[in-house]
Amino acid sequence: MKTAILSIGDELLLGEVVDTNSARIAARLADAGIATARKLTVGDDEGAIAGALESLAREHDVIIATGGLGPTDDDVTARAAARATGRRLVLNEEAMARLREFFVRLGREMHPANGRQCLLPAKAELIPNPTGTASGFHLLLDGCLLIFLPGVPAEMAVMLEETVVPLVLARRGGYQCTRTSTLTVFGLSEAEIGSRLSDLDRSRPGFAVAYCVEYPVVQVKLRATGADEGALAALLEDMAALVRERLGGHVVAGDGETIDTTVARLFRETGMTLSLAESCTGGLVAARITAISGSSAYFLLGAVTYANDAKARLLGVSDGLLAEKGAVNAEVAKAMARGARRLAGSDLALAVTGIAGPDGGSPDKPVGTVFIALADRAGCTAKGYHFSGDRDRIRTITAVTAMDWLRRRLLAG
Amino acid sequence: MKTAILSIGDELLLGEVVDTNSARIAARLADAGIATARKLTVGDDEGAIAGALESLAREHDVIIATGGLGPTDDDVTARAAARATGRRLVLNEEAMARLREFFVRLGREMHPANGRQCLLPAKAELIPNPTGTASGFHLLLDGCLLIFLPGVPAEMAVMLEETVVPLVLARRGGYQCTRTSTLTVFGLSEAEIGSRLSDLDRSRPGFAVAYCVEYPVVQVKLRATGADEGALAALLEDMAALVRERLGGHVVAGDGETIDTTVARLFRETGMTLSLAESCTGGLVAARITAISGSSAYFLLGAVTYANDAKARLLGVSDGLLAEKGAVNAEVAKAMARGARRLAGSDLALAVTGIAGPDGGSPDKPVGTVFIALADRAGCTAKGYHFSGDRDRIRTITAVTAMDWLRRRLLAG
Repeated sequence: MKTAILSIGDELLLGEVVDTNSARIAARLADAGIATARKLTVGDDEGAIAGALESLAREHDVIIATGGLGPTDDDVTARAAARATGRRLVLNEEAMARLREFFVRLGREMHPANGRQCLLPAKAELIPNPTGTASGFHLLLDGCLLIFLPGVPAEMAVMLEETVVPLVLARRGGYQCTRTSTLTVFGLSEAEIGSRLSDLDRSRPGFAVAYCVEYPVVQVKLRATGADEGALAALLEDMAALVRERLGGHVVAGDGETIDTTVARLFRETGMTLSLAESCTGGLVAARITAISGSSAYFLLGAVTYANDAKARLLGVSDGLLAEKGAVNAEVAKAMARGARRLAGSDLALAVTGIAGPDGGSPDKPVGTVFIALADRAGCTAKGYHFSGDRDRIRTITAVTAMDWLRRRLLAG
Repeated sequence: MKTAILSIGDELLLGEVVDTNSARIAARLADAGIATARKLTVGDDEGAIAGALESLAREHDVIIATGGLGPTDDDVTARAAARATGRRLVLNEEAMARLREFFVRLGREMHPANGRQCLLPAKAELIPNPTGTASGFHLLLDGCLLIFLPGVPAEMAVMLEETVVPLVLARRGGYQCTRTSTLTVFGLSEAEIGSRLSDLDRSRPGFAVAYCVEYPVVQVKLRATGADEGALAALLEDMAALVRERLGGHVVAGDGETIDTTVARLFRETGMTLSLAESCTGGLVAARITAISGSSAYFLLGAVTYANDAKARLLGVSDGLLAEKGAVNAEVAKAMARGARRLAGSDLALAVTGIAGPDGGSPDKPVGTVFIALADRAGCTAKGYHFSGDRDRIRTITAVTAMDWLRRRLLAG
């Protein structure tokens, strides 16, 4: 069965709105084992919509369209559907009855313009909209099932779940589904990961691997398609284990996790506490740690010591060291970590100091030079890095590297 | 000139990734006065991509394609482009030279798989990628300009700006341009802004207003289209002045600025210095301040005092006050601000304490309760807020509200 998604709206062609509806529909269909063959976006133009419906209907069995069912003049989808299918627009009595009910439930008077939303192509089947005024509908064009939904994401989602998915599944018959497992990888390039996993792809029927770069991590997506959900889950588990074997400690998060939630989980599991001392990341690491609900249980304090004076006063980094060696070196990173640990009384303390740029670099210490240090009961270790990119990228990869230090330390127990 | 955008990637058809690239391209083209006629999405399938290129080329003058230029086996866009245009794939020497340079700059060895990214259709013109390994390219098919960019959003954005927009504008000829001026508004709803500005839209020929919600701010985009750039600039300036008059202090940033860069500029202009004490925002405010290059000139230190003990030890908030009233109230916010100012010796100190949720709320102080305080030489003021939404939204609007406090304080001189 070939399925297409048609998104309708001038705001999409102007790039004012990102099309989340089509992603949501595609994801829901994929969960039900239905592949989307293509997605198309056209504006609020009757001719363009009708033309898109006619050409998609020639090559697909199902088209799910969203948008253009509102009460204003620029909403022309129903008229375009009537034109494409050679029908008249008529007042749909069921839609009108439901709309009246809707306003009674709301305790509000119906605006006359809303009546326009009940003008649907003759003999269209209604798709109820329990949370809004725009009814959906479906009808056939040359054997292709055309489905129309409003563009308001929350309304669309309810109608997709309640009516559209069952409708499409009934049309297809024969159950098949796709399951995805995502592993997050840090510290290896996409090319390196691809080469280590190149034999996995298509090594089993119905199995595929895809890569998605979300700087600075790469997501490895394992996908399995078939009729037996239990078998798919087992296959994905086997494949995920194989990927972990091949990529080792570079897999920083499993399915449904991020490196940040992984670190949060490890803090909860180990009962360790944390303090931070940040210079070039300027609070980014603390912001990532505290983005996770429950972080107050293990995160005691963070010091954003941007000025040298703050490093000395807050963390007890010696003025002599700062004067002699500057703020960006392993000794200062270590002194910051020790100072934060002392100040907070935490089990672990992580410190970051570096040059995020674009200014502040020197031939000796170019922009991107970063030192990270971690102090615990046993002592303190530090390491230097040379990252590349603009200020934003250097800060981001430094913060993720810091999270990875915490992850590895917590795993070590 | 008819323009289409082609997004390529299985992850898009599976709904795993929302297609932000096509929105960004469409928005940038619209800014340059070029309408997008349609957007199409196909998977990583050579036949589907080639077929899409052929059919789009018949009806459009320019096609901008993204995705499928990576180093792994699932990246087949270059092959599809070669197939659609009847060319061979050849090693592009310029692409290879740039790629080698890229790895030299990085100080890293090039992975052999990256070489695959230099196999481009014969005689394709290169589109340099200064920040990644995937070269873009362009070539003609039946008079239609085909442009190929990688799918990694940050890389794509740079190439779009540096090479693609000038290329498309040059192709269009017949000079008419669209200029956009964007004002950032905080503290008014989109509906309220729209109603205050409703008469502006289409009040002058070639002028339009659009609204774009980027939580928690709303961007008001003023667009003018015409042949005379000077006249457009003057019109936009007049209209921007009118908008500022209607929206008053809610306009937090002018064209080319954000609230964060505005605050940075005001710090540079006034010569004031800053320290921060953050609880519920956990470093988010410090991260925003330090995201701006040059912030070390005015930002002295930030204390992320998540635990009560840290508030007491670092900032000198009295244990008695914390025990009696808890951590979320105006007195504690003031004590935090005063403590940070004392610790840093800064002109200004801003403090935030609140309940970001989902846990930690009470009937008395529900999730979303936030206090902000600002200390300066003259004293200290605090105010309470009740924000709604999930943890992420509460933290974000709190951080932006804090930035707005700084903006207003710095403007007051």
